[in-house]
Amino acid sequence: MMTKNELTIIKAGGKVVEEPETLKAFLDDFAGLTGFKLLVHGGGRSATALAARLGIETQMVEGRRVTDASMLEVVTMVYGGLVNKSVVAGLQARKMNALGLTGADLNLILAHKRTGTAVDYGFVGDVDSVQSSEITNLIRRNVVPVVAPLTHDGAGQLLNTNADTMASALAVALAADFKVRLIYCFEKPGVLTNPEDDASVIPRLTYTLFQKHLKAGIISEGMVPKLHNGFDALKGGASSVIITNIAGLTESGRGTALVI
Amino acid sequence: MMTKNELTIIKAGGKVVEEPETLKAFLDDFAGLTGFKLLVHGGGRSATALAARLGIETQMVEGRRVTDASMLEVVTMVYGGLVNKSVVAGLQARKMNALGLTGADLNLILAHKRTGTAVDYGFVGDVDSVQSSEITNLIRRNVVPVVAPLTHDGAGQLLNTNADTMASALAVALAADFKVRLIYCFEKPGVLTNPEDDASVIPRLTYTLFQKHLKAGIISEGMVPKLHNGFDALKGGASSVIITNIAGLTESGRGTALVI
Repeated sequence: MMTKNELTIIKAGGKVVEEPETLKAFLDDFAGLTGFKLLVHGGGRSATALAARLGIETQMVEGRRVTDASMLEVVTMVYGGLVNKSVVAGLQARKMNALGLTGADLNLILAHKRTGTAVDYGFVGDVDSVQSSEITNLIRRNVVPVVAPLTHDGAGQLLNTNADTMASALAVALAADFKVRLIYCFEKPGVLTNPEDDASVIPRLTYTLFQKHLKAGIISEGMVPKLHNGFDALKGGASSVIITNIAGLTESGRGTALVI
Repeated sequence: MMTKNELTIIKAGGKVVEEPETLKAFLDDFAGLTGFKLLVHGGGRSATALAARLGIETQMVEGRRVTDASMLEVVTMVYGGLVNKSVVAGLQARKMNALGLTGADLNLILAHKRTGTAVDYGFVGDVDSVQSSEITNLIRRNVVPVVAPLTHDGAGQLLNTNADTMASALAVALAADFKVRLIYCFEKPGVLTNPEDDASVIPRLTYTLFQKHLKAGIISEGMVPKLHNGFDALKGGASSVIITNIAGLTESGRGTALVI
């Protein structure tokens, strides 16, 4: 059996990619990582800010953005345009051959409009499948895909899609061709037992412990979908999943490692 | 010598890609074209509309948009996000494997910030070079690149760049690998001797005739840069350059053919 090359997939959310100073620091650290790389980014704060400037109200339900036609235009502009292209230009300046993508580009991620929920989320997509053959070729040519949290339904409709879920789905699809390390990079140093205490990082979270903490209400609500996505990636073939902040990109042993 | 495959490069500007009905018609026609394809699009009307909604004034000098930092954000969102991803999703729905790109993606087009002009155009870029090896590979795999009119300077700065010029530069670079047909598709049926009369199309415009008409003031000012770009493409190796409207995409013999 041929040894697979390592691919590091980083999901960078929140402030990490949206403020010039943290973005710069993040791109410097990202550039320093060796081996093949892929980045999935968010952009929610910028979308909310642009929406406000346009007089469009942002409505969040359980952490998910309700996306009517106007809000879809906003997230398409912010995620697919402003954030994605700023990151791409920043990586090119650091001599990485970045390629910005949404799930519509190269037919990368097909999704369907979420229906049957109590709340009408509008143009929000749930991932159906990943077609990774084109990006596998590109990654092997040292191209760094930079993926914005948008997908399509194959019938011309763009859909706003959770970046954590996209990172997980990409990790599973690309595990066929690479030894995938998935890193969720956000503001906190890891999964905390006390959200007020950054020193309360759980270093190693087994699925059993996750279930136990979940029942005990120890893990904060916002972390739960991220952890489900992380465990899905592990079950689907990712070799490791780590939840950490920017410091965890360059220093090993930081953050929370998921274990199944 | 190996016969080169044909590649049709279409620059679609103005209303063609910005209004849902004309965009739909355009994408249907574009989908019907056989052989390898590449699309370069504009988006100026949408950028002006978004800028107005954000209270940002649009200033045009000789048909070029003055692009300060706020306007650069607007065009990055509109060209790189809204227009580009709408086209990509629309082509995917028509079973074309579209890939949205700016000049920063895959380091496709390097440019420099325009300086030394009487007017400070701000973040407007003039093309320096095209790196087409990655898109040549992708085109050969039946991927359809969809290029937004943005470039980068290689140092992290995105630049607003004329789409006609980018189409011409791409035609020249790709002429090394393909037999390139370049079609400038806009509102008018071709180059007109009387801008008020759509029947006054010049069917065949040699460079000598262009110079003659230019001196006589017969060719309208707005057409001049487009024609310079078209003749540059021909001189640089494109096998044909045609200026036409959407009807000219599917019916041969329409529009103005440039000849050197």
